[in-house]
Amino acid sequence: MTITTEQMRFWSPAVRELEPYVPGEQPKIQNLLKLNTNENPYPPSEKVVAAVQAVLANSADALRLYPDPDATALKHAIAKQQGVGVSQVFVGNGSDEVLAHIFKAFFVQNEPVLYPDITYSFYPVYSQFFNVQTKEIPLNENFEIVIEDYKQVNGGIIIANPNAPTSIALSLAQIEEILKANPDRVVVIDEAYVDFGAESAVSLVSKYENLVVCQTTSKSRSLAGLRVGFAIAQDHLIAALEAVKNSFNSYPIDRFAIAAAVASFEDQVYFVEQCNKVIASRDKLIVELEQIGFDVLPSKANFIFASLPTKDAGELAKELRERGIIVRYFNKPRINRFLRITIGTDEQNQRFVDALKNEILV
Amino acid sequence: MTITTEQMRFWSPAVRELEPYVPGEQPKIQNLLKLNTNENPYPPSEKVVAAVQAVLANSADALRLYPDPDATALKHAIAKQQGVGVSQVFVGNGSDEVLAHIFKAFFVQNEPVLYPDITYSFYPVYSQFFNVQTKEIPLNENFEIVIEDYKQVNGGIIIANPNAPTSIALSLAQIEEILKANPDRVVVIDEAYVDFGAESAVSLVSKYENLVVCQTTSKSRSLAGLRVGFAIAQDHLIAALEAVKNSFNSYPIDRFAIAAAVASFEDQVYFVEQCNKVIASRDKLIVELEQIGFDVLPSKANFIFASLPTKDAGELAKELRERGIIVRYFNKPRINRFLRITIGTDEQNQRFVDALKNEILV
Repeated sequence: MTITTEQMRFWSPAVRELEPYVPGEQPKIQNLLKLNTNENPYPPSEKVVAAVQAVLANSADALRLYPDPDATALKHAIAKQQGVGVSQVFVGNGSDEVLAHIFKAFFVQNEPVLYPDITYSFYPVYSQFFNVQTKEIPLNENFEIVIEDYKQVNGGIIIANPNAPTSIALSLAQIEEILKANPDRVVVIDEAYVDFGAESAVSLVSKYENLVVCQTTSKSRSLAGLRVGFAIAQDHLIAALEAVKNSFNSYPIDRFAIAAAVASFEDQVYFVEQCNKVIASRDKLIVELEQIGFDVLPSKANFIFASLPTKDAGELAKELRERGIIVRYFNKPRINRFLRITIGTDEQNQRFVDALKNEILV
Repeated sequence: MTITTEQMRFWSPAVRELEPYVPGEQPKIQNLLKLNTNENPYPPSEKVVAAVQAVLANSADALRLYPDPDATALKHAIAKQQGVGVSQVFVGNGSDEVLAHIFKAFFVQNEPVLYPDITYSFYPVYSQFFNVQTKEIPLNENFEIVIEDYKQVNGGIIIANPNAPTSIALSLAQIEEILKANPDRVVVIDEAYVDFGAESAVSLVSKYENLVVCQTTSKSRSLAGLRVGFAIAQDHLIAALEAVKNSFNSYPIDRFAIAAAVASFEDQVYFVEQCNKVIASRDKLIVELEQIGFDVLPSKANFIFASLPTKDAGELAKELRERGIIVRYFNKPRINRFLRITIGTDEQNQRFVDALKNEILV
C-alpha cells in the first residue's frame, strides 16, 4: 500500500525512516521442499506433546491465568541443561526478541557497535530501531572474521558463531581474544546454530564479566514454531536485560511455550541424537555438492553456503523454485554468487541434489 | 541483587535509569482466591482445546517450522469478529507488546503524549523506554476523564476505556470529541476491558484516520496465558505498527497462540455468554459491598475500584491476604484508599464478601 505524505504526519519521525527486517518466506505450496529458513527437518522431542497436553487439562483452564512473568521453570530447565546458575539465564520470545533487548540494554553508547559486514541482517535493523551507532567490519576474502579488527574503540561487539549466512565458526580461543581485548564493553556471541558442531562460549561465562551468549530453541530443538530464545551471562548483565524486558512486556512467553520448551530441555538424549543426524546429513550433502562442482564454505551450522562457478546463483534459485525447492538467495554485494541451503533429511537433500544433477545442470 | 558501579559501565546509560513495570503478583499458594490481576474466572472456549490439539498432530511436527510472521489467519478471524478489513488489524504478543509498538510508532514526537494521572501504569514505563515526552492530565475529583483537558497541544493521546484501575468508561460521543479536537495526532483507545459493558470505538475506525483501538484476549476471552493482543485502525496507521514490529521481532506470535486465538474469535456465542456472566456477577457484588459500606466507582470492567471509609485499604488488603484472598492495592497518591478487586464467579465473590462480613469487619 502507499502511504501519503499527509498520512505520514501521524508516524513518529524516526519510524518513517525504518528499514525493517525481511524474514525468509513461508510459502503455502504443495509438496514444497523448504530449505530456506534453517528449520530442523525432524519433529521436536515427543515429551513436548505431553507437556502441552498438560496445559490443556481441565478444559484448558490454565489459560485464563497469566503465565509466570519470569518463566522460572524454563530458566531452571535451561540452567540445568547448560550447567549455569538460574540467575545467569534470560529468556525471551524467540532469540530475535532477546537480541533486540540486548541492543537496547548494552549497545546504546557513544561509540559504534561492531559486527561483520556479512552476518545476520537483523543487526543493522535493531541498531536503527534503537538508534545504535554501528561499524561494519569486513570479513576477509575467505569470509572469515579477522580477530584483530575487533580490537578498536567500540560501544559493544556482536558476532554470530557460527556466522550466518557463511556457516563458518570461530574457535573458543578466538572468542577469548576478543573478550580480553574489550574488558569494558559487552561482547555478544549469537549462537543460533552452535549445536551443529561449533564450540559454545557458555563455558566462558563464569570467567568473563563482559560476555553474553545468546541461543535459540528454533533450530537445534525443532521449536521454531514456539518462539523461545535465551541469553546466558553473569548476573549483572542479566539484570540489565530484565530491566529492559520489564519496561517492554511483562509476560513475553506464553504457557504453551514455557511448558514445551521445558520438556525439550529435559530430553537431552533426543536433542543430541537429532543434532548428530543433521550434522551427518550435512557432511554427506557437502560431498555430493562438491562432486557436482560447488564451492562450499566449511560449515558448523545446519545450513551450507555454496556457490557454483559456472552458474548465476539467482538463476539457480529460480530454477530450483520452479521445481518446488526453496533455498535462500541474498542479492547483496560479495555474497550474490552463493545460495544458503538448509540441511534437510537425507531424502530431502537427495531430492535437492537430484534436481540439480538430473534437471537443472544437465 | 546489587549491581556495582563498575558493573554498571556495561549498561546503556539510559537503561541505568529505567523504572520497569511491576505486574500483579502470581503467588503459588494453595486454595488461593486470586482477585488481583483481572483474569477471567471461566475457562476459554472449548474450541481452543481442539485447535491446539491440531497443532500437536503428527508428533507436533508443525512446531519445527516458523509460524506465519504476519499471523494472517488470526488477522482474518479478528477482522471477521470485529467487522473490519484484514488490513485494519495488527496483532502482537499480548496487548502490552502492541502498546509498546504504539508508543514507538506514533508518540516519539516533539510534544508530550497525554494520558490521565491515574491509569495503566505501563504508559509511563513505555514512555521512558522510548524517550517519549509525557504530560499527565489529572482525573477530576470523581475520578473521571475531563474531555476539555485533551484539547491542548500534544504528541498523541492514550486513554484506557474503561480506565484502569478506576473502571469508569467514557461514551463514544466523548471519544469522538477528543478525536475531532486532535486531527493531526494519533488518539489511542486502550480497550482491555471494553467487553464488560463499555462501548467500543472500533465502530469509529472507518470515520477517523487518527484513531487506534487496542484490545486483548487476556480478559474477556480467558486467554491471559496465551499472550495475544491486537490493534484496529486505518491501513496507514497499521503500516506504521508493522514497520515497528518488523524492526523488532518478525515472528512474535507462536503457532499455539495463533491457533488458540483463532478458535476463540470463532466462538462468538461462548464469548458473549461468558462476558454476560461476569457482568451479572459484578453488579451483584457491587450491591453486596455497598451494603457493607463500601464506596464503589461505577464499573464497566471485570473489576471494581472500591474503598471503605472506615478502614485503611492497605490494612484491608493485608487481612484479606491472610485469608488467602489477594486483591490489588496501589500505595499511590489519590488512590491509596481504594482496592482493585477482580470479578470472580459468584461463589468466589461470596467467599470474598463472607471474609469481609464474618471475619475482617466484625
